[in-house]
Amino acid sequence: MKSDLTTFFKPKTIAVVGASKNSTKIGHATLKNLLISNYVCKIYPINPHEDSILGIKCYKKLTDIKDTIDLVLISIPAPLVPQIMRECITKKVKNVIIISSGFSEIGNNELEDQIKHIIKNQNIRVLGPNTMGYKNASDSLDASFVFGVPRKGNVALISQSGALGIGMIYLANNEFMGVSKIIGVGNKLDIDDADLIDYFSADPETKVIGLYIEGIKDGRSFMNSIKACKKPILVVKAGRSTAGARATASHTGSMAGSDQLYSAAITQSGGIRCQDLVELFDMARALAGQPPAEGNRIGIITNGGGLGILLTDACEANGLQVPKLTPKTYKIIDSIVPDLVKPNNPVDLVADAGFYRYEASTRALLADPNIDGIIIASVHGGYARPQEFTGAILKMVREQRLHEEFKKPLLATWVGGKEFEDLVYDLKAAGVPIYPSTWRTARAMVALYLEGQRLKREAQKT
Amino acid sequence: MKSDLTTFFKPKTIAVVGASKNSTKIGHATLKNLLISNYVCKIYPINPHEDSILGIKCYKKLTDIKDTIDLVLISIPAPLVPQIMRECITKKVKNVIIISSGFSEIGNNELEDQIKHIIKNQNIRVLGPNTMGYKNASDSLDASFVFGVPRKGNVALISQSGALGIGMIYLANNEFMGVSKIIGVGNKLDIDDADLIDYFSADPETKVIGLYIEGIKDGRSFMNSIKACKKPILVVKAGRSTAGARATASHTGSMAGSDQLYSAAITQSGGIRCQDLVELFDMARALAGQPPAEGNRIGIITNGGGLGILLTDACEANGLQVPKLTPKTYKIIDSIVPDLVKPNNPVDLVADAGFYRYEASTRALLADPNIDGIIIASVHGGYARPQEFTGAILKMVREQRLHEEFKKPLLATWVGGKEFEDLVYDLKAAGVPIYPSTWRTARAMVALYLEGQRLKREAQKT
Repeated sequence: MKSDLTTFFKPKTIAVVGASKNSTKIGHATLKNLLISNYVCKIYPINPHEDSILGIKCYKKLTDIKDTIDLVLISIPAPLVPQIMRECITKKVKNVIIISSGFSEIGNNELEDQIKHIIKNQNIRVLGPNTMGYKNASDSLDASFVFGVPRKGNVALISQSGALGIGMIYLANNEFMGVSKIIGVGNKLDIDDADLIDYFSADPETKVIGLYIEGIKDGRSFMNSIKACKKPILVVKAGRSTAGARATASHTGSMAGSDQLYSAAITQSGGIRCQDLVELFDMARALAGQPPAEGNRIGIITNGGGLGILLTDACEANGLQVPKLTPKTYKIIDSIVPDLVKPNNPVDLVADAGFYRYEASTRALLADPNIDGIIIASVHGGYARPQEFTGAILKMVREQRLHEEFKKPLLATWVGGKEFEDLVYDLKAAGVPIYPSTWRTARAMVALYLEGQRLKREAQKT
Repeated sequence: MKSDLTTFFKPKTIAVVGASKNSTKIGHATLKNLLISNYVCKIYPINPHEDSILGIKCYKKLTDIKDTIDLVLISIPAPLVPQIMRECITKKVKNVIIISSGFSEIGNNELEDQIKHIIKNQNIRVLGPNTMGYKNASDSLDASFVFGVPRKGNVALISQSGALGIGMIYLANNEFMGVSKIIGVGNKLDIDDADLIDYFSADPETKVIGLYIEGIKDGRSFMNSIKACKKPILVVKAGRSTAGARATASHTGSMAGSDQLYSAAITQSGGIRCQDLVELFDMARALAGQPPAEGNRIGIITNGGGLGILLTDACEANGLQVPKLTPKTYKIIDSIVPDLVKPNNPVDLVADAGFYRYEASTRALLADPNIDGIIIASVHGGYARPQEFTGAILKMVREQRLHEEFKKPLLATWVGGKEFEDLVYDLKAAGVPIYPSTWRTARAMVALYLEGQRLKREAQKT
């Protein structure tokens, strides 16, 4: 029986095997990240040649430490790792992260098998090898060797690629998207995607789970974990194409498997397969910040007819509907738009629409029983008022959060330049999902619709 | 026989009917834009109630002017337009832009027909009604009523939506993409997309043509113009879906027609249909800044294995190949990458790749006969060096422009945050196409491949 990952993510004691005074070494960066962390625990550097590193007392070897050790980080040359793993077993260490590379990812399966053999039937959990480690932003603990501080939030990210994992931290910060945990799974010798999905499903700090995977070893348990998960799961599965699969094999050594099989497995289990990392982040922002859509009927509000058409196209191409509004809603909209314009869906508020038109029409659509989700759009046709557009969205998102009957997702999009971009930051900082493309906006709405469907299925089960 | 559009885009004399002292009037904004323009011509404000506007002598009516008039801009209430059009005929005006709205776009077909009747068999060209006018950036002439100054460049933009047209100026400026002309076609009473494609095909300032269309009245002449055009044509056709088509009908009054028919017509004529405006700009930047790809064989250079796989997937999903490199190239790459890594396509330069690895591998791929186009990627895995990545691309783009044998397109992409974004501006400012998404990068490469195919077909004709 494998132990769960609570002490793995929230250790009371951490040892760093391979801690170093040399600032170019990974063991140095790892120790420094732990020290930068705002997390209370005991830290034990291990290095046979030093008395202290970065001002902390250093131990010759693991077994010299009296304390129980919850987590050991290992960054020493690969051939030396088995010996340390044996010491971990002796010391009854609960969790290990093998940062070191030089295992199955370069064809050295034998060395990896040795470690599998050492931990077999032991009460120990192992992440890696060939991993960056993890950053637990919820608890401000950085157990990785790479620099980068994610904002605290409710999206858990799992990456089979260390570099892309770190890239994702920058992407997340850039989009003002908060992260609960981000973890590199490396070669998945023990802890794999399924284990992490199980953990994050129960993690109160996590609302959405995003995965970048190249290959899965145990497809059945992966599917079961997605199925059992109480939260939306977004998956970028790389190695889609023949050449991509070939490149995958040479990257992490895992076989990519049939791409159609993966797609079917992910979708049938209730996960969402994303086209690329950008789409994963677009959908994660929507799922983290907005309520799910109970159906696929979308209302569109715009200050430009052309933009409304492009949004309608993007919605319908993705299986969403843009239906007629109720007579009551038409009446309200008729009273707020200029005389020339007929009320319709998309609602055209005309180029110079200010705060009131945007606010009143959004309120009308939030109350319209024909509508499950709303997209609010602005194009800078020379007469647009970005500040009023932004202000109206911020106000309506606040009202949406206050009133149970307004629990429909609000997404925003714009076409324009710098004047908008500053305001876009205001919206992102407030957790309002906004996208610079009609297609991306519609795809984010699809994620909210699929989440609504998933919740319905879950409700039916109970 | 319709006259060509030379005096339309390069008039020596311009009259503004409806010029006004009132700064909230469109006739005021129009005159002001002409005065802001850095273009030498004579300007005649027309207003029966004023002696001078914005410091310029004002005329009571068109026929009071002695000079020949090349271009008249009309911004007066719609019912008064026919009378002015008759005066234009009397005065032998060559070109007219009817900015005024209130015609077929609101169902007033009769008024529009009146104007058609007035200009029938006359030697006059009319843009609009219901148009923003145009901005001729090549010659620094702003004959529109909306504020916004596009950078000078070689992409001509044609928009059926005024608001999206202006939005495109901001988009273009934001992407550092230069524009030759941008024009709103409005209701296309006379001058239509086909006329403009013909003009831009011969315009030495234009290299790429982008269109946003909602509907086409004369499909045959549209197709013929695309076929005859000597330049790549990018088309966003809105009203793709049923609901989108319904919204189109209520926006500009034009029927959208079968979407499949449009797609076939555009593609068979040699145009490229874009998914949305973002894709149009992505492709336009690539076509404006890079040579076409002679085939579909793409080489990928990356500092992260995962990013290489995602790029390979995106290329293959879009009909591009990621083939093996020549033994000679493998040998070169083997000598520049760390020992652990095997040379492959994607070329993995490893996380900490600096200037030399990027430069030398790009040079090797430029020289590789197995490769038609190159994508250079960086992921900020904590060890990336954005400045060196950027520097290597800038250097190789310069070499590519110097050496005939290096005439292959170079596109770039990245995953990361702010540290990259400043450098991305440096690349954009230098005209190097770079995209924050693997999918968008592959799609831009598709445009370069299709342009290569188009040029081959053209060469076969002659």
